[in-house]
Amino acid sequence: MADSINTRCDLMMFGALGDLAQRKLFPALYQLERAGLLHDGTRILAIARNRAGTGEVRRILLEKLKEHVKWHEFDAGVAEGFLQRVDYHFLDFTNSEGYRDLNGWRTIEASNLIVYMATPPAMYGVIARNLRSNGCCDQDTRVVVEKPIGHDLESSKVINDELGEVYNENQLFRIDHYLGKETVQNLIALRFANNLFASQWDQNHISHVEISVAESVGIEGRWGYFDKAGQVRDMVQNHLLQLLCLIAMDPPADLSADSIRNEKVKVLKALRRITPHLMDTHVVRGQYTAGTSDGKPVPGYLEEEGAIKRSKTETFVALKAEIENWRWSGVPFYIRTGKRLPEKLSQIIIHFKPAPHYIFDPDQKHLANNKLIIRLQPDEGMSLQILTKDQGLDKGMRLRQGPLELTFSETFETDRIPDAYERLLWEIMKGNQYLFVRRDEVEHAWQWVDQIIRNWEDSGEPPKRYAAGTWGPVASIAMITRDGRSWYEDA
Amino acid sequence: MADSINTRCDLMMFGALGDLAQRKLFPALYQLERAGLLHDGTRILAIARNRAGTGEVRRILLEKLKEHVKWHEFDAGVAEGFLQRVDYHFLDFTNSEGYRDLNGWRTIEASNLIVYMATPPAMYGVIARNLRSNGCCDQDTRVVVEKPIGHDLESSKVINDELGEVYNENQLFRIDHYLGKETVQNLIALRFANNLFASQWDQNHISHVEISVAESVGIEGRWGYFDKAGQVRDMVQNHLLQLLCLIAMDPPADLSADSIRNEKVKVLKALRRITPHLMDTHVVRGQYTAGTSDGKPVPGYLEEEGAIKRSKTETFVALKAEIENWRWSGVPFYIRTGKRLPEKLSQIIIHFKPAPHYIFDPDQKHLANNKLIIRLQPDEGMSLQILTKDQGLDKGMRLRQGPLELTFSETFETDRIPDAYERLLWEIMKGNQYLFVRRDEVEHAWQWVDQIIRNWEDSGEPPKRYAAGTWGPVASIAMITRDGRSWYEDA
Repeated sequence: MADSINTRCDLMMFGALGDLAQRKLFPALYQLERAGLLHDGTRILAIARNRAGTGEVRRILLEKLKEHVKWHEFDAGVAEGFLQRVDYHFLDFTNSEGYRDLNGWRTIEASNLIVYMATPPAMYGVIARNLRSNGCCDQDTRVVVEKPIGHDLESSKVINDELGEVYNENQLFRIDHYLGKETVQNLIALRFANNLFASQWDQNHISHVEISVAESVGIEGRWGYFDKAGQVRDMVQNHLLQLLCLIAMDPPADLSADSIRNEKVKVLKALRRITPHLMDTHVVRGQYTAGTSDGKPVPGYLEEEGAIKRSKTETFVALKAEIENWRWSGVPFYIRTGKRLPEKLSQIIIHFKPAPHYIFDPDQKHLANNKLIIRLQPDEGMSLQILTKDQGLDKGMRLRQGPLELTFSETFETDRIPDAYERLLWEIMKGNQYLFVRRDEVEHAWQWVDQIIRNWEDSGEPPKRYAAGTWGPVASIAMITRDGRSWYEDA
Repeated sequence: MADSINTRCDLMMFGALGDLAQRKLFPALYQLERAGLLHDGTRILAIARNRAGTGEVRRILLEKLKEHVKWHEFDAGVAEGFLQRVDYHFLDFTNSEGYRDLNGWRTIEASNLIVYMATPPAMYGVIARNLRSNGCCDQDTRVVVEKPIGHDLESSKVINDELGEVYNENQLFRIDHYLGKETVQNLIALRFANNLFASQWDQNHISHVEISVAESVGIEGRWGYFDKAGQVRDMVQNHLLQLLCLIAMDPPADLSADSIRNEKVKVLKALRRITPHLMDTHVVRGQYTAGTSDGKPVPGYLEEEGAIKRSKTETFVALKAEIENWRWSGVPFYIRTGKRLPEKLSQIIIHFKPAPHYIFDPDQKHLANNKLIIRLQPDEGMSLQILTKDQGLDKGMRLRQGPLELTFSETFETDRIPDAYERLLWEIMKGNQYLFVRRDEVEHAWQWVDQIIRNWEDSGEPPKRYAAGTWGPVASIAMITRDGRSWYEDA
C-alpha cells in the first residue's frame, strides 16, 4: 500500500462552498481519506466569498458530507480526521491583495500546490492572474478547471488564452468527469489489452456504433442556465465526443497523456463536418413537450419555471457522426442524448458485422451479428451478445442471442465503484494528465459542434417536439431507420 | 408445437434389458414422452434374450425409470403412458428363425423402422443379416450402433463391412454420445454464427488449444474390459477426436450431415502422424498408482480387483496433436484424458494470441491473452476471459482478468439440459445424421491412434506412473511446459 499512497500536496479549493465542491469534491476527498490514500501531510484550503471561520466551515462541511456520502460509507471518525486537514479562507476572488495571505498558509513549496477552480469560468483568468502576481504558484503548480470552457470556439479560446498566459498546458487539468468513470477508463483496457477486440476494431469488422446518454430528469430549476447552452453544448461537445474519441481512436503507442490525447485529437480532426446540406440526414434536434416521467405528469420545456416561450434550445439531439479515416470509413457513429427520456442510461454499443456466410435458420439471420454493450450507467459493466444454440430438443439448430455478462459491482470483490471525482482527484495528486482534456481537444470539439449550432441558427427552424418520457422526436428513429438500423432499446 | 412432434416410427431395441438401455435409452425415451415429442403412434419393441412377458418387462422398466430419472422429473402418469408403447420380445439374436415374428409386430412400413443395437458389437453383423434375411427391414430402415466400432482400424473395418453388407451408409447412425451434448452441438453455433469468433479462428489469432476430459473415477469394476482397451481407444479415438474435429474444422457450406462430416474428415486426414521419433515430445502415457480420490485412499490400477499385475494399459494420455493445414499450421492442440484425476471435468480452451503491442503494466504482460473456455461439464457453459481495468483507486491502469460468463442452466429459462441420448434419439427419429459418425471418420481416427498404440507396443516402455488424485504424470506437465505454456488448471 505504501507506494500507492499519494504524495503530499497543498490543495486550494476556490468556490469551496459552492454546489460542485459540496456535492462532489469534498465527498470525493473524504473517500480518499477513508481509503487511506491521502498523504498525512496533505492540507486543504477551502476558499470562498463567504465571511466565516474555519470552525464554522468545518461544521458546514460535516453536515454536507453526511448528506452526500452514502450512509454506510460515512464514518464519523474518518470525517473528523479529514476535516482537521481543512482550513477556511475568506476571499473576494477579484481582490488581488487578498491573495497574499495564501502564501502564509502553504506548508510546502508551490510545486506541490494544486489549485482547484470550482468557480464560474469567468473567474479562471482573474484567479490565475492574481495567484501569479502574488507569487502563489510556480511552473509546477497544478491547476484544475471545470467545464464549460466557453460556449463556442471563440469564447473557449479566450478562457484558454487567459489560463495559458499564466500556466503551461502541462499544468492544466481540464475536467470532463466522464473520463473519471471506471467504465470509461475501462474502454482503454478493453480495447488495447484484448486482442480479440483490438484486431476487429475497424470498418472491416464493425458495421456501426451507438452512443446514448439519456437523462430522465428535465431542467431541475436551472432553466435560465440551460437555455443559454442546450444539449449540444452541455453534453455533446464534451462527454459524448470524449466517449466517441475513446472508442474510435487509433491505439496509442503508450499510456502517456499526450500519446492518448494525440490520438483523440486525430479523431476529432477526422470528424466529417456537418454542412447545411447534411442537416436533414445527420442531425435531429428535439425539445420536450408535456408528458410523463416515472408515471407522473410533467410540464414541457417551454412550461418550466422561468421559461421563455419562444426558446428554440434543444433538449435532445441525435447525430450521425462520420469519421473520415482509414479505420472508420463507412462506419457511422450514431449518438444521441436528451432530457426527459424514459430512463437514465448511458451506453455504447459496438455492432459487429455478421459472418460472411450464414448457415442457420434463415428466419434468424437478423440475429446474427455480435454486439458489445458497454454500460456506463446504471450497473456499470459490459455484455457481449453472442449466438448460441437454443436449448430444448425441439429447437434443432435454432439460434439464441445470449449475453456474456460482466457487471463490475458483481464481479469485483468490492462493494463500491469509486465516483469519477475520486479517480480524477487522485490522478491530479499523482500528476497524471491522461484523464484530462487538452486545449486542442476542447477547440476541435467546439469547431465541430459550432457548425451544427450555426446551421440551426441560419435555418431558423424550430426543434422537433417530443413528449416527455419518450425516446425523442420520431425523426431520430427515422434517421437511423433510413440506414436500415435501429436504436438498441427499440430493437 | 405440432410440426416439431416426431414422425411416427417403430423402434426395435436390441439389448433392451442391458445396462445402456436401462440407464440411458429408456430414460431418454421417457423424457421425449414427457416433453410431448413422441408421435402418438410410435411403438417400441424391447428385445432381449431373457424369457419374460411384456407385463413383467414393463414392471422392470418402471422400476429402472424410477431409479434413473431424477425424482422431480418422474411423473407416474407419463411413465404409465410411455410403457403402454412398449412390448417385449424374447429372442436369441443368433437364431434367424426367431426374427420372423418381428414382422408381425411392426405397425407401419419398414421404412419407418428404427433398429437400435444396444448390444456388444460382435452382434451387429448377426442381427443385421438376420433382419435382412427375414425381410424385417428395407433400404430406409435406420440402424443405430454404439461404440466401440472395433479396437483398431482392421477390426473396425470388419464391423463396418458387416453392417455395410446390409445397410447403406445413409441408414447408419453410429453413436458418439459426446455429439449429443448440448455444449458440443453449441460449438457449431458458437463458431459459425458469431463472426467475432469465426473471423479469428485460425493460426493468425489463436496460439494453441487445450482439450481436457478428466474423470475422477477409476475402473469401477470393469478392469478386464478396460484393460483390453485403454484410455486412447476408450476416449481419444472417439470423444476427444470428435471434439478436436468440431473445434478445428473449416466452416461447412451448410448444416447437412455430409457437409459437416466432410469437414471433420478433412481435419482427421490432416492430423500429423505421430511417428516413433515424435513420441517423446508429443505423447505421455500414464497409469495411476495408489492415491486418493475425494479425500479417501484408493488403490492403484494394478491393485484393482481382477487386475493383471504386468498390464501396461494406459489410464491417462496427454497428446500434442498438430493439424497440417492452412488454418492450423503452428497451432498445437494439447489433449489429455485420464482416470483418477482430481475432478470430473471436460473443457476446451481456446487461447487467443495477445495483441501485437502491449502498453500496460509490464508485470502483467503474461495476462494479456484472451481465452475462450467452453465447459462441457460440470456447469455446461462458456466463459470468455477478457482483460479489464482493475477496480480501486490505487490500481491505476492495472489490468485484471475477468470472465464474461454464460452458464446454460442459468441463462436459459429451462430447469434442465437434455441428456445427450435424448437429443440423439430425437435426431434419429427425425432422420438427421449430422450428430452421428460416418465410417470414414471412424477409420481415419483409428488410423491415427493405431500408430500411437503401435509405437508403445514396439518400444515396450511401461506407462509413467501418477498417483490417483493428481493431474497425470509429471511428463504431461513437462510436455506443455517445453512449449512455454501450461495446462489451464495449473495456471
